[in-house]
Amino acid sequence: MSLRPLPLGAAKITGGFWQDRQDVNRKTTIPAAADRLEQAGTLRNLRRAAGHEPAGDGFTGKLFADSDVYKWLEAVAWEQSRSPSSELASWQATTSAVVAAAQEPDGYLNSYVRLALGGKRFGDLEKGHELYCAGHLLQAAVAQSRATEDRTLLTVACRFADLLCATFGPGRTEGVDGHPLIETALVDLYRETGRSSYLELASYFVEARGQGLLTPPGHHGPAYFQDHLPVRSVRTIAGHAVRALYLASGATDVAVEMGDAGLLDALRATWQTMVESQAYLTGGVGSRWYGEAFGDPFELPPDAAYCETCAAIASVQWSWRLLLATGESQYADLIERTLYNAVISGVSLTGDKFFYVNTLKVRRGAFADDQRSAVAGRQPWFGTACCPPNVMRTLASLDQLVATSDDDGVQLHLYAPSSVTAEVSGGSVGLEVATRYPWQGTVTVRVTESPRSPWALGLRLPAWASGCTLTVNGVKQATGPVGRLLSMRRSWSVGDEVVLSLPVGARRTEPDDRVDSVRGCVAIERGPLVYCFEQVDQDVVLDETAVVPGPLVSRERPELLGGVTTVEVPARDGQTLTAIPYYAWANRSVGPMTVWIDAR
Amino acid sequence: MSLRPLPLGAAKITGGFWQDRQDVNRKTTIPAAADRLEQAGTLRNLRRAAGHEPAGDGFTGKLFADSDVYKWLEAVAWEQSRSPSSELASWQATTSAVVAAAQEPDGYLNSYVRLALGGKRFGDLEKGHELYCAGHLLQAAVAQSRATEDRTLLTVACRFADLLCATFGPGRTEGVDGHPLIETALVDLYRETGRSSYLELASYFVEARGQGLLTPPGHHGPAYFQDHLPVRSVRTIAGHAVRALYLASGATDVAVEMGDAGLLDALRATWQTMVESQAYLTGGVGSRWYGEAFGDPFELPPDAAYCETCAAIASVQWSWRLLLATGESQYADLIERTLYNAVISGVSLTGDKFFYVNTLKVRRGAFADDQRSAVAGRQPWFGTACCPPNVMRTLASLDQLVATSDDDGVQLHLYAPSSVTAEVSGGSVGLEVATRYPWQGTVTVRVTESPRSPWALGLRLPAWASGCTLTVNGVKQATGPVGRLLSMRRSWSVGDEVVLSLPVGARRTEPDDRVDSVRGCVAIERGPLVYCFEQVDQDVVLDETAVVPGPLVSRERPELLGGVTTVEVPARDGQTLTAIPYYAWANRSVGPMTVWIDAR
Repeated sequence: MSLRPLPLGAAKITGGFWQDRQDVNRKTTIPAAADRLEQAGTLRNLRRAAGHEPAGDGFTGKLFADSDVYKWLEAVAWEQSRSPSSELASWQATTSAVVAAAQEPDGYLNSYVRLALGGKRFGDLEKGHELYCAGHLLQAAVAQSRATEDRTLLTVACRFADLLCATFGPGRTEGVDGHPLIETALVDLYRETGRSSYLELASYFVEARGQGLLTPPGHHGPAYFQDHLPVRSVRTIAGHAVRALYLASGATDVAVEMGDAGLLDALRATWQTMVESQAYLTGGVGSRWYGEAFGDPFELPPDAAYCETCAAIASVQWSWRLLLATGESQYADLIERTLYNAVISGVSLTGDKFFYVNTLKVRRGAFADDQRSAVAGRQPWFGTACCPPNVMRTLASLDQLVATSDDDGVQLHLYAPSSVTAEVSGGSVGLEVATRYPWQGTVTVRVTESPRSPWALGLRLPAWASGCTLTVNGVKQATGPVGRLLSMRRSWSVGDEVVLSLPVGARRTEPDDRVDSVRGCVAIERGPLVYCFEQVDQDVVLDETAVVPGPLVSRERPELLGGVTTVEVPARDGQTLTAIPYYAWANRSVGPMTVWIDAR
Repeated sequence: MSLRPLPLGAAKITGGFWQDRQDVNRKTTIPAAADRLEQAGTLRNLRRAAGHEPAGDGFTGKLFADSDVYKWLEAVAWEQSRSPSSELASWQATTSAVVAAAQEPDGYLNSYVRLALGGKRFGDLEKGHELYCAGHLLQAAVAQSRATEDRTLLTVACRFADLLCATFGPGRTEGVDGHPLIETALVDLYRETGRSSYLELASYFVEARGQGLLTPPGHHGPAYFQDHLPVRSVRTIAGHAVRALYLASGATDVAVEMGDAGLLDALRATWQTMVESQAYLTGGVGSRWYGEAFGDPFELPPDAAYCETCAAIASVQWSWRLLLATGESQYADLIERTLYNAVISGVSLTGDKFFYVNTLKVRRGAFADDQRSAVAGRQPWFGTACCPPNVMRTLASLDQLVATSDDDGVQLHLYAPSSVTAEVSGGSVGLEVATRYPWQGTVTVRVTESPRSPWALGLRLPAWASGCTLTVNGVKQATGPVGRLLSMRRSWSVGDEVVLSLPVGARRTEPDDRVDSVRGCVAIERGPLVYCFEQVDQDVVLDETAVVPGPLVSRERPELLGGVTTVEVPARDGQTLTAIPYYAWANRSVGPMTVWIDAR
């Protein structure tokens, strides 16, 4: 591994844009989810499986509903590492006890299998989601162990994982789950416990993929669940986006832990194809509603975009693993793009309503026949409720993505008001970051602790940041090219101040000519934010106008949408269009909206 | 009704483009289907239900598989009206006997319900397709009765329809089928038998739609099966395209038979929205893979186009009903466009392989994970085998779309070498049509029989045919505007010759600016044919070129693709691109292809 994650708590977001999102997540989203999981019967399933309630009419909801609870428990755990509370502790204790009680004597745990299938396990690896649910349990357990030192779920998870190790693998049951996740979760658990059997099973699941162990469901072919090719033979990511990305994350974990350079190279090449030809400007991935799948390269229609919130989150997870594996800031660039524009677009500013699908365009006359469609408006919950708790755990653990370290120094990847401590070879480093990013481009990094020996401060220069400037203690420094990690190795002293000025002014972005549906259009970006035009902000009909050359005027609007900077864009016939950050759209009403706008 | 269909056999296609397609349909497609239906277990299902074979492992295939047999039987029947054969007669006799034997004592008939559900009927109107299968049985029965005077299936159909009348309706079971078709089939049966109860039930099914009698399946909302609004309140067609179009056909039948002008107006308005904003240049409809559904207006991505072959056929059926109801040639224009470019694209030139989906663009690097994808190549059959026998019955009954009559005269809608007889108020009319259409634009209509009193010869002037010319007995006539039926009322004599010259030269077609994905592109059309560019015909990479202004050169290529006229199109850097008729694509190999091409 090239870079190391910091120990939990070593990087703290202390204010600004992301803390605002985290506060809403803590105060509204996570508590509301407790209610929703109750109302949907999801928690009751586990209580019934635990025998804490009569089984009654059995299981309610989708067969993977347990995973919603686990993701929420993961958020509850991470949130306590940010700041403990009795409510969080109580949810954790109560729910973990139910989960533990629902575990069967040999370690198996799945309320759907218990309540709806009479306990018949692993009968439908293609669609059953049993290992997928197990994966979320393992991830919640690792979070709980790391964040709260409560070992309740970890014990449950290890017992289940031990059962999986005894069940699956060469000479045992040869099979993989139709919905990947267990791979990365097992590596997480291996890292937390040191038990190599978990890593070995993860490696088995990765290698067993693409060997035809699964029977494709319905009309879909094997690529739907990534069984068309061995992972190391893939160069273009395909099929169900969330599955593909969780698998890629797990395969990256395995490649790193096993020192498998060939596998890592394949994954890096696949990521490159994805970012160049299968990702939207927002970082959103998965073009197709049908199969919730990646499209072919350059198949990126804005109106028909699926861009599931969970796929964006899974993309962040994969990029994070590649960032750690390689130290290359292109991965952090995509993380930032995706977080600002494809993850938080999935939750309302109030924190209590969600988008499953993050479309880039809504037409006049668009019609919703699906709860997931943006046209249906943000929803309080979903029949398939994967996205909301995925957002919760992502925001609750966001501090962990701010910075990394290696023996030689500390690297800052996400710019936010924050404090960071890290151990480098010479001793302890402390940093305080002050910034109004993403609205403003100045990032001030103050050294609060430093060993005497030289170490390297790494600052990500985003690929869009041409023209950025840098000073150290007021003295201008050369930055070199952008799109990389700028490493400043020197003897740092407490009180040293580094000021990075990123040019966050609004800019026009032209599309790749191979994306049919946006040819002749431009998009507006500002710093890491992708902007969009909502009809409600315009005097003209969006479909009937076009932007023209001229200055882009940024305007701070503290009263609008929780405080945003809008961008005014000159349009045909002397009109002006107003763009808002894409993440904030559909927070007033849902009407026509577009990211890409005619510029011919 | 404004126009009347001619009696069966009164219009005969006697040569040319369509007869070639019909010959392949007769000699290859229909016989091959007999084998496929056997291999797939589809015919065996009925034999098992009939008790002609032991039930063995029960039912094979999709629950609506009986309908594949019925559509094939319909093709077999129509084909006999074109020209009897002992093989056709034998298939009909054998299979009809099995169907009759599979009918239960009270008239019910469905091999899936019999073999797989233990006879439990109508338990899942949403997804069960029982009335859909019944509808295809009724249509096959009417075809058989009309084409061969064999009443075997008609007797079966009436018994089943009587059971449906006794089962469904006000005061009985209130319900509609999740997959419309029974509506139009009941009106067909009413027209064949005169039994008004069938019309009444059809009317009930149309009116009961959009009243929330169905529970939407899975993620889909009620529009998926057109239950979101009463049919007469719809103005934009939505949901599953085949379902929507079969329902629209049935509703049009009901509107005509009941004299319901309000319903007819609603359907006409809906058709208008469809043709203006929801149909591809090919006439293909149903933009979305997800839900096999219509898109929002102007959501017409060429690469992601679904354009199910069945939807194109259903569109032809609906337009035919509106043509008869109104006499407006815009409906015949869409029929022609759809037949040439969205129906026969669904069958290989050899007649033994099929497309389910008729995409308008395949990219380099496109990947198929679905049997229906064009990228997977033309298939000999499908798990869901609706499209192939639908093509068969369409080609076998195509003669019926050539011409209509009313009291005042005869109208020619499809130009093909043909003979037409019709009764008008003054007596019998006979016409012989000679043409090399669509390759050449000259259509010669010779009067072979005429009453003494004046009558009107109607000739469709396609909307694209600006500049067409017309002579009667060598004397030039004014044609007036195109996009309408030109009616020439006079005293005609045997031997009179009308020559219509349609300008079938290649032309560039610009897209509607509101269709994002083809902005800046053009398509090539030639007469009624939409053209496309296949990579295999080009010296340059399709993605990397653009067409430029300059002459379009048509070239007759009798050796190519069964004989086509290609169009050579000047491109960037002095290159020339070669376009072929879209219907003929993917008959050599499947590679990159596009209908719309960059013209910037």
